[in-house]
Amino acid sequence: MPFSSRVRLAEGEPSSRNGGVAAVSKPSPELWLARTFLGALGNPPVRLALWSGDSVCPTDTEPVATVRLRDRRSLLRLMYNPELEFGEAYTDGRLQVDGDLVCLLEALGRAPAAPRASRLLRRPRRAHTNTLRGSRDNIHRHYDLSNEFYRLWLDERMVYTCAYFPTPTASLEEAQLAKMEHVCRKVGLRPGDRVVEAGCGWGALALYMARQHGVFVRAFNISHEQIVYAREQARAQRLSDRVEFIEDDYRNVSGHYDAFVSVGMLEHVGLDHFDELGRVIDGCLASHGRGFLHSIGRNAPDHLNAWIEKHIFPGAYPPSLREMLTVLEPYGFSVLDLENLRLHYAATLRHWLARFERATDRVASMFDDRFVRAWRLYLAGSVAAFSMGSLQLFQVSFARRSNNDIPWTRAHLYQ
Amino acid sequence: MPFSSRVRLAEGEPSSRNGGVAAVSKPSPELWLARTFLGALGNPPVRLALWSGDSVCPTDTEPVATVRLRDRRSLLRLMYNPELEFGEAYTDGRLQVDGDLVCLLEALGRAPAAPRASRLLRRPRRAHTNTLRGSRDNIHRHYDLSNEFYRLWLDERMVYTCAYFPTPTASLEEAQLAKMEHVCRKVGLRPGDRVVEAGCGWGALALYMARQHGVFVRAFNISHEQIVYAREQARAQRLSDRVEFIEDDYRNVSGHYDAFVSVGMLEHVGLDHFDELGRVIDGCLASHGRGFLHSIGRNAPDHLNAWIEKHIFPGAYPPSLREMLTVLEPYGFSVLDLENLRLHYAATLRHWLARFERATDRVASMFDDRFVRAWRLYLAGSVAAFSMGSLQLFQVSFARRSNNDIPWTRAHLYQ
Repeated sequence: MPFSSRVRLAEGEPSSRNGGVAAVSKPSPELWLARTFLGALGNPPVRLALWSGDSVCPTDTEPVATVRLRDRRSLLRLMYNPELEFGEAYTDGRLQVDGDLVCLLEALGRAPAAPRASRLLRRPRRAHTNTLRGSRDNIHRHYDLSNEFYRLWLDERMVYTCAYFPTPTASLEEAQLAKMEHVCRKVGLRPGDRVVEAGCGWGALALYMARQHGVFVRAFNISHEQIVYAREQARAQRLSDRVEFIEDDYRNVSGHYDAFVSVGMLEHVGLDHFDELGRVIDGCLASHGRGFLHSIGRNAPDHLNAWIEKHIFPGAYPPSLREMLTVLEPYGFSVLDLENLRLHYAATLRHWLARFERATDRVASMFDDRFVRAWRLYLAGSVAAFSMGSLQLFQVSFARRSNNDIPWTRAHLYQ
Repeated sequence: MPFSSRVRLAEGEPSSRNGGVAAVSKPSPELWLARTFLGALGNPPVRLALWSGDSVCPTDTEPVATVRLRDRRSLLRLMYNPELEFGEAYTDGRLQVDGDLVCLLEALGRAPAAPRASRLLRRPRRAHTNTLRGSRDNIHRHYDLSNEFYRLWLDERMVYTCAYFPTPTASLEEAQLAKMEHVCRKVGLRPGDRVVEAGCGWGALALYMARQHGVFVRAFNISHEQIVYAREQARAQRLSDRVEFIEDDYRNVSGHYDAFVSVGMLEHVGLDHFDELGRVIDGCLASHGRGFLHSIGRNAPDHLNAWIEKHIFPGAYPPSLREMLTVLEPYGFSVLDLENLRLHYAATLRHWLARFERATDRVASMFDDRFVRAWRLYLAGSVAAFSMGSLQLFQVSFARRSNNDIPWTRAHLYQ
């Protein structure tokens, strides 16, 4: 689609020179740069407003939002590495967005040339390896920010993974409860079962499994803040004799279990360690055992957004489904059921983003405005990614090859 | 497990020499060979009875069945290439089985050293490539045997793929109907949809989709006998204006469709041609379209049993799930749902085997006794393979990445 030939004023810009009518003038070098940049991004329906007051929009239709840049340096950095520098500039306040942030990010993501453009540009080296120590550092940076902070915008049970909305209008609280029940049914829990959970967050699922399904759970997590909270919850709910929260890495899981459950950890394992995870599952799952993996994923392999990897989720990597299956295939596990809950994660994130927006004053007082902007961008970008389909949410149920004690159909999940 | 040190008489063997008591004698060279062979197979609980009247059983427990060999040559050939020669000898009548054939094959398959043993042994070269001409020859050899033959043991609608048993006691007819409805719901058919079916067998699913869901179907198949039958059915059911049966290869699918459906064809495509199939789907599926693949598969890559490949399904290859996904991943398709119906295929095959056994006189008169034995072994071996988990049945639903018009949950499949 061609650029519009007019030079537009950015929305809301004082238009003293021409009384609000779009200026028609000779394009400046900066405008030429801005157009070239939007062209490289695939000409998304987005207006780019420069520090000079001039703006450019590559489509004739109404732009979904306006991106305002404060200075030339930000434009140049953005052109050099848009994937990283969009977030850097937004966090700094050098880049502002007029209009809906999610719609803007979707428009940028949907632009046809976006992947090609980003692949031409330099990417930062990844240094966030997931050794035992590396994982602890990586997890600490995100999950130990403070329980108080997460309490501001998660549901009352502090579930920080994709919910399951039986209907699109279910509340977040209902959807997180429904997700936990959906997982328990998929795992086929029976009273008295010994369950190991790898990556247990604040413990909601482990406690739910013990309370509602009468199982014994050993739940592993390397986030200190989360484990402290989870143990408090176990005491408060009088479940300490049924649920043991262990501050340790999944690689140190020992014992034998009737079920292996992991919800939202695989994204943090890193492709280099998938085989280790498979070995852990193979080593701890009984012959009649059931396994369950829930993870953010992709349709095809791709790197994690550079800004997200640097500032939000160091060491994270959402695998393609084929990559995800490399956990299971070497050990001959049989995939029984797979469900893609992509749209449920978009819905979950919309709830989180809305609650976050209502709590920004509190968040700013706990951290600062930069933090608020960074987390707004992370949450909005995640809504966009799941809504557009650049991220998926896979739930995979599995068992050993020779286990015939498996559900006959999936009807019991919906009764 | 050690070999039993006694030399046992084969069951049913006249025991004139010792009045029915197991003989204790110095092992013959043949017995030594037989023991060595069973050891290499992982000492399954199977009695091997030799032409001499002697027999050997590697376990102290009651063997699940007795394998009788007619001559030394058969033993030697079996040792050289058990995977191929078991079927050759059984078909010839040089190898007989006393006891349940399915149980025997399961016992052989479950023996711990079986894969290692077979991997040490020579395998025949595969010459059944799936070029356009090669596929036609391969399909002709199995599916054009005669419709009359298949009518003897398939359900009344001639569905030759895994059924879906809502309950384990459903009849085969009920289960094949339920399977077709399950597929239609997974594909999300709407009246007026244009559907392409790749590999349509005798046309039952195409006709069901048109009749029950009001869609238009173009169904491709390279089996001449099947297409002739399917067209007759379309005329008889007055559906010729809604269902077009096309005698052509999936690689020649043209047009644009709201849904792509393929049930039981991928096994015949061959790994080398998965990318071609993906390109065909990518080329014909509308942006809002839904896709569905149903195929025999595996937990991990493995070759097809050499005898089955040579005599029953030339050119066939059941892919691992990761291999199956190479059809979809290069084109960015999004896997929405996957269901493993392994136990349903074991149940389907048990029905087919039972009906086949009731029709062996008719089958022998149409072909000969060798044919009866070969097909009995194929059907029994397939029951064993699905029951043991060396084969899986994967149903995969998918859509394009950007398609958000996808089912919110899977509850509608079970209403």
